[in-house]
Amino acid sequence: MQKLKIGIIGGGQLGKMMTLEAKKMGFYVTVLDPTKNCPSHSISDEHIIASFDDVNAINELAAKSDVVTYEFEHIDHKALIDLENNGKKIYPTAKSLKVIQDKLTQKQALVEGGAPVGEFIEVKSIDDIIKSGESFGYPFLLKARTGGYDGKGNYIIKSHDEIQIAYESLGSGKLPLMAERYIDFLMEISVLACRTANGETAIYPVGQNHHEDNILLETKVPASISKENEEAAMKAAGLVMDIFKGVGMFCTEMFVLKDGGVLINEVAPRPHNSGHYSIEGSVTSQFENHIRAICGLPLGDTTLIRPTVMWNILGSNIQNDGKAVVDGMNESLAVQGVKVHVYGKETSKPQRKMGHLTVTAETLDLATERAKLAHSLVKIY
Amino acid sequence: MQKLKIGIIGGGQLGKMMTLEAKKMGFYVTVLDPTKNCPSHSISDEHIIASFDDVNAINELAAKSDVVTYEFEHIDHKALIDLENNGKKIYPTAKSLKVIQDKLTQKQALVEGGAPVGEFIEVKSIDDIIKSGESFGYPFLLKARTGGYDGKGNYIIKSHDEIQIAYESLGSGKLPLMAERYIDFLMEISVLACRTANGETAIYPVGQNHHEDNILLETKVPASISKENEEAAMKAAGLVMDIFKGVGMFCTEMFVLKDGGVLINEVAPRPHNSGHYSIEGSVTSQFENHIRAICGLPLGDTTLIRPTVMWNILGSNIQNDGKAVVDGMNESLAVQGVKVHVYGKETSKPQRKMGHLTVTAETLDLATERAKLAHSLVKIY
Repeated sequence: MQKLKIGIIGGGQLGKMMTLEAKKMGFYVTVLDPTKNCPSHSISDEHIIASFDDVNAINELAAKSDVVTYEFEHIDHKALIDLENNGKKIYPTAKSLKVIQDKLTQKQALVEGGAPVGEFIEVKSIDDIIKSGESFGYPFLLKARTGGYDGKGNYIIKSHDEIQIAYESLGSGKLPLMAERYIDFLMEISVLACRTANGETAIYPVGQNHHEDNILLETKVPASISKENEEAAMKAAGLVMDIFKGVGMFCTEMFVLKDGGVLINEVAPRPHNSGHYSIEGSVTSQFENHIRAICGLPLGDTTLIRPTVMWNILGSNIQNDGKAVVDGMNESLAVQGVKVHVYGKETSKPQRKMGHLTVTAETLDLATERAKLAHSLVKIY
Repeated sequence: MQKLKIGIIGGGQLGKMMTLEAKKMGFYVTVLDPTKNCPSHSISDEHIIASFDDVNAINELAAKSDVVTYEFEHIDHKALIDLENNGKKIYPTAKSLKVIQDKLTQKQALVEGGAPVGEFIEVKSIDDIIKSGESFGYPFLLKARTGGYDGKGNYIIKSHDEIQIAYESLGSGKLPLMAERYIDFLMEISVLACRTANGETAIYPVGQNHHEDNILLETKVPASISKENEEAAMKAAGLVMDIFKGVGMFCTEMFVLKDGGVLINEVAPRPHNSGHYSIEGSVTSQFENHIRAICGLPLGDTTLIRPTVMWNILGSNIQNDGKAVVDGMNESLAVQGVKVHVYGKETSKPQRKMGHLTVTAETLDLATERAKLAHSLVKIY
């Protein structure tokens, strides 16, 4: 084949890590991102500097590419559906994106396909929220159906008194809303799965996630769960791929319930933060398999090579008005088996995802201990 | 620290793989290479398009960089020594480069440092070649002291009758020459070693190499050698780092002798083709450790994770007057555990290094079998 051309909407860390894999295989990468010095800028062949909702720019990206993919799901799907209807390869498909990016239609599709999800209700008015409280009890969740991430767009309503403030904080009805029963989970997990247009599917082992302030902090693989829950989680992730006819890498975030079983919390139609461990931990990383899948290549082995722990490096609270500074790289890399990824974002903000680190080791305990130590030594601000 | 700036002389596959690692860690990379669309072009922050012997361009590269490195040893060392004398960090040091790039002074330094090397003689005239034949017997090797690679610049003299033609084919005295006793080896091996400016040294396990037509075809790790030879080889590679006070990744190519023991054939002061296996096979690749070493960061774990086999993908004989074409990527990637690296050189030539593939597996036999199969399925022309 001639050099394959890939277009990526979004040049953040996920776009960057996709690009690094695409370049390894010799492909041509064009990125669309509004930020001139975004993480992908210096490693892509071309960079279209434009807003994500600029339809002309999306069309230009598509014209330059054999296949178009994206690093986040909050894109106007209409432009992509038009392209898809005109025969352009958009992976994951624009039709699946449309269903997934609306958390209500996502959950409806999951229920219809027989996947395990918690109870939810469409919210059209403040009355529906009151009814949700009566039906689910307190606390329960009010969610914006679109656009939320890292807990943004979610409100945990703890009592009837909070309904009004929750409603107002989520746009007073301007945003489409849904309510969900609150899941009192034992553990948060996620499972990566990848599927080609031919239906070949590859599923990764279960990762165990630890969030703080709704932002992922740590992923440990393998997860410390029972064989039954592991099988249920991997089965659910496979079912998700069938339901959405996913093409590319998907991540299914799930809860392990206190009395056994798993429930799907959310599906992301893209490589996922909780899958970064796979770069060092797996025979084939989530980024390589995503590129393989969207390029029509067979999928790589998803075997975990060694126990692996990933920690996010979030922007610290240290004041810095200039360009982002990395401190403690030396100390952190001195810990055995540590790999530090710095995304290269120009400026740091508290809680912004600036990088991550991964440790592989002979045992999960060793990897856990070393990752925690290495994480305590490095700061970006 | 602020974003560290690395300058790389050479934007071929080694420069590209160094750059991919540097970008992972968020560093800024400027490459100097005469070819506009060289493998590093699209992934570096800046590309100075200039000849390798353009002193102004080298000075410009140094001015833009905190540290300068190179992907090949055949550079005019004078410009680098001037920069080094003016306080610029050049790693590996220009002084070590000067000694190593001349195969005679390299071997003299190795002998002086107590490293195991075969017999050699400086050749100043055709008479010295005749004396070499008398001393070493036939066959023996006539070598250009500088500039050779992949067997180029070497002549195996099988009898007295070939002396004149060998002498003429190596420049009739215009090139500095040396002669070496021919080593009737059991096996070709190489050992990667990395050293920081502080003297921290990390040594990789022994790789077993198979050359065809003087070009590396296959590297298998671990090598199938005795414990004694393994220890001798790793000790020799460590000694090489001490002798040259190497900073960065070095590769020491050695022969395992039929009656035991090892002899150093050649030292390369850079990441090496026979070390590509380390990208997938080792906890830390040769490229990451090279970047760590030249940036003053601690070295990463060199443990082999799983048995690994690497095959070069050389330009095939199929005629193609246009841009390089990759055939069989699909079939090759369908083999379990295979990773294909395509360097992205614009044009292919027979025997040109266009890419490589690596297989990791539970056993070396499985990796060997799968690598051979995958290699038979992919072609670049």
